[in-house]
Amino acid sequence: MHSMTTIPPIITLLTDFGERDGYVGTMKGVILNIVPHARLVDISHQVNPQDVRQAASILVEVYPYFPAQTVHLVVVDPGVGSERRPVALKTPRGCFIAPDNGVLTLVRRREPAAEAYVLDNPDYWLPEPSRTFHGRDIFSPAAAHLANGVPLADLGTPVGDLIDLPLAEPVISPGSIRGEVFRVDHFGNILTNITGLRWIDERTAACFPTGLGSDLGEPVYFDAPSARITVGRNTIDGLSQTYSQVSIGQVLSLIGSSGELEISINQGNAQEELRVEVGDPVTIYFKS
Amino acid sequence: MHSMTTIPPIITLLTDFGERDGYVGTMKGVILNIVPHARLVDISHQVNPQDVRQAASILVEVYPYFPAQTVHLVVVDPGVGSERRPVALKTPRGCFIAPDNGVLTLVRRREPAAEAYVLDNPDYWLPEPSRTFHGRDIFSPAAAHLANGVPLADLGTPVGDLIDLPLAEPVISPGSIRGEVFRVDHFGNILTNITGLRWIDERTAACFPTGLGSDLGEPVYFDAPSARITVGRNTIDGLSQTYSQVSIGQVLSLIGSSGELEISINQGNAQEELRVEVGDPVTIYFKS
Amino acid sequence: MHSMTTIPPIITLLTDFGERDGYVGTMKGVILNIVPHARLVDISHQVNPQDVRQAASILVEVYPYFPAQTVHLVVVDPGVGSERRPVALKTPRGCFIAPDNGVLTLVRRREPAAEAYVLDNPDYWLPEPSRTFHGRDIFSPAAAHLANGVPLADLGTPVGDLIDLPLAEPVISPGSIRGEVFRVDHFGNILTNITGLRWIDERTAACFPTGLGSDLGEPVYFDAPSARITVGRNTIDGLSQTYSQVSIGQVLSLIGSSGELEISINQGNAQEELRVEVGDPVTIYFKS
Repeated sequence: MHSMTTIPPIITLLTDFGERDGYVGTMKGVILNIVPHARLVDISHQVNPQDVRQAASILVEVYPYFPAQTVHLVVVDPGVGSERRPVALKTPRGCFIAPDNGVLTLVRRREPAAEAYVLDNPDYWLPEPSRTFHGRDIFSPAAAHLANGVPLADLGTPVGDLIDLPLAEPVISPGSIRGEVFRVDHFGNILTNITGLRWIDERTAACFPTGLGSDLGEPVYFDAPSARITVGRNTIDGLSQTYSQVSIGQVLSLIGSSGELEISINQGNAQEELRVEVGDPVTIYFKS
Repeated sequence: MHSMTTIPPIITLLTDFGERDGYVGTMKGVILNIVPHARLVDISHQVNPQDVRQAASILVEVYPYFPAQTVHLVVVDPGVGSERRPVALKTPRGCFIAPDNGVLTLVRRREPAAEAYVLDNPDYWLPEPSRTFHGRDIFSPAAAHLANGVPLADLGTPVGDLIDLPLAEPVISPGSIRGEVFRVDHFGNILTNITGLRWIDERTAACFPTGLGSDLGEPVYFDAPSARITVGRNTIDGLSQTYSQVSIGQVLSLIGSSGELEISINQGNAQEELRVEVGDPVTIYFKS
Repeated sequence: MHSMTTIPPIITLLTDFGERDGYVGTMKGVILNIVPHARLVDISHQVNPQDVRQAASILVEVYPYFPAQTVHLVVVDPGVGSERRPVALKTPRGCFIAPDNGVLTLVRRREPAAEAYVLDNPDYWLPEPSRTFHGRDIFSPAAAHLANGVPLADLGTPVGDLIDLPLAEPVISPGSIRGEVFRVDHFGNILTNITGLRWIDERTAACFPTGLGSDLGEPVYFDAPSARITVGRNTIDGLSQTYSQVSIGQVLSLIGSSGELEISINQGNAQEELRVEVGDPVTIYFKS
């Protein structure tokens, strides 16, 4: 039925611009002027203002599900107008356009074959870029030209290193894995930096060294029902498989949809109830 | 001017995922991987968490305005990972993909020719689906394959019954129609389950038995200016035709854009002013 | 790679409908029924309810960045169902569909060649339009038919005048420019009606008579570092070039991305800190 033979270029957008003003719309106008057939997909515009770490965390969760030719445009840019560089990252699973402020840290850990460029060719910017809105004047045109087929080498210059966010790594000891709260989602689910978790059978879970770049060595297997999880001052007995395994309103821990340790309340808001903040310590205690 | 001969597949999305995290973006990535030409339309991602009834109410208002070949993807899914079934509903006015938790109740009342399926063919899921995010792993791929032309019979198995939400029906007596508050919208307008209202002439309104599945029998005609409406402890004299028929800040009742009895404040927030909640009783008293 | 030869029609949407209900989705369904290939771009649906002035301000900032054949659909419509007219404005840089309530004031000032029409041909409305949702029943079908190639003259009748918003103009005196707070953005940045600002060199800024329709006469040049800006009871010394020119948390003023005087806090929320409201006086004092 659908006989179109070309795949339309896809550009995703991830910003802290909110959706009240016209900033995101302006960026889309700039893009559609350059590549009118682009498919534009909003990832989020509700990143906390200037929260580079939150944006990095959302981005790494989402990008693997998009077609490999997708261009991901990320504008969380507290340093706009300063010396911070506009950059692009080319990987086998997507291209990324962003300020060089660490927001690509987690993608780079997942994509060792990535090539980085500084977007220093003003031919592919809007004329006379402002000092306060590079999302419109530099990043959007770059993403659009890239999606339109312009080689990345035309847009900029290869660069060896990008800035990395300082990120705490989980620590595995005999009988425990210690990490911290990494992000809280819309439902109040508490997401942690203890990642690479997977169910092996109905009782056994494992933590694989496939987390966010952490090198944990050999996988660690543990008995899920008898594990004990602590987050802040709260303790949860056992790792559950689904939210509805416990009663409505009860606290549980489980393996989140990206393989991370998650603390939740069935049909409730765990962050509000448990008063947990990003950075609070989280530990899984187990018998291995 | 626009010479494309095929209509692109349209998929709408209605969830309680919010727009802060990458959950909706992830679903869109999954869909575009399968059907890159899909037109994706957000209905809402701000359904109250786990509020199946609110989602059902929004869905039934929106779907009739879309082309009949549209696939409507609804993920408000408190039972994710449990025994609740992923289902599809095929109707002459659209296909629906959702968890079997009652969210399709109102669509089914409007579409007696609907055919239901359980989405039990894992060939059309993502491999190794998680236990916490079927929106990504089961519902999105199903919607995408369906939009891509895969027959529903390939995706699943016909099923006779789906779960229904318990919903209060309005009660018509001589001289009154009693119902309840059903939903409050973004403006604070109070929407009720008294539906099927229509203007006959400048003074006369009627309540037709075309409401949300309720069988009210013969239409009831009444004199609109002399009707009296009560909601909670508030009383409103007369049914107005437009918001601006009363002064700014004044309470009014009118026939909402989907034929429902609506209580509003001209340029104000009726729910905040009147302190009305979903489920509160609403009555129209009239001389018939 | 992308061989499509026609540019898809683009329709932008700017409303105060919020994103919780199905109102925006319904409008998109109506549009896609008429012009299935339309590219739909959300500008904002979070305009404050009934805030025509805010919508006018967002619209004028965004539209110049879109392709000239774009149709901009604006529904902030407190007078829905009253005598206020549905109108269209054709300009060399875009077509606009809106209620005639002043929301197009700023576009008209920027586009002297604009032609206005009243959308009085019911053949291009939905049948039996409601009295409360012309966004769905009149404006969306009009925008869709226009994007689909129907001449504006078929949709309505030329009209000489549209309603204008009363808007305060900045006042230039020797040594000062006085204006007011016009809008506050998502970050809490305070945007003013002192527009047409531009950097001349590293020390010199100028105010050009290219503001929002104001006729300021000759450009005014001033020394930026020694200028003094007052907003409400607050005083800021010097006009900065970028947010990061001052320390995190410090108040600054700069030229915003649309050439307006902006008061901000580096990585903070100026509106919350300075307790400034729309309409508060703002002055730049300088030595010319």
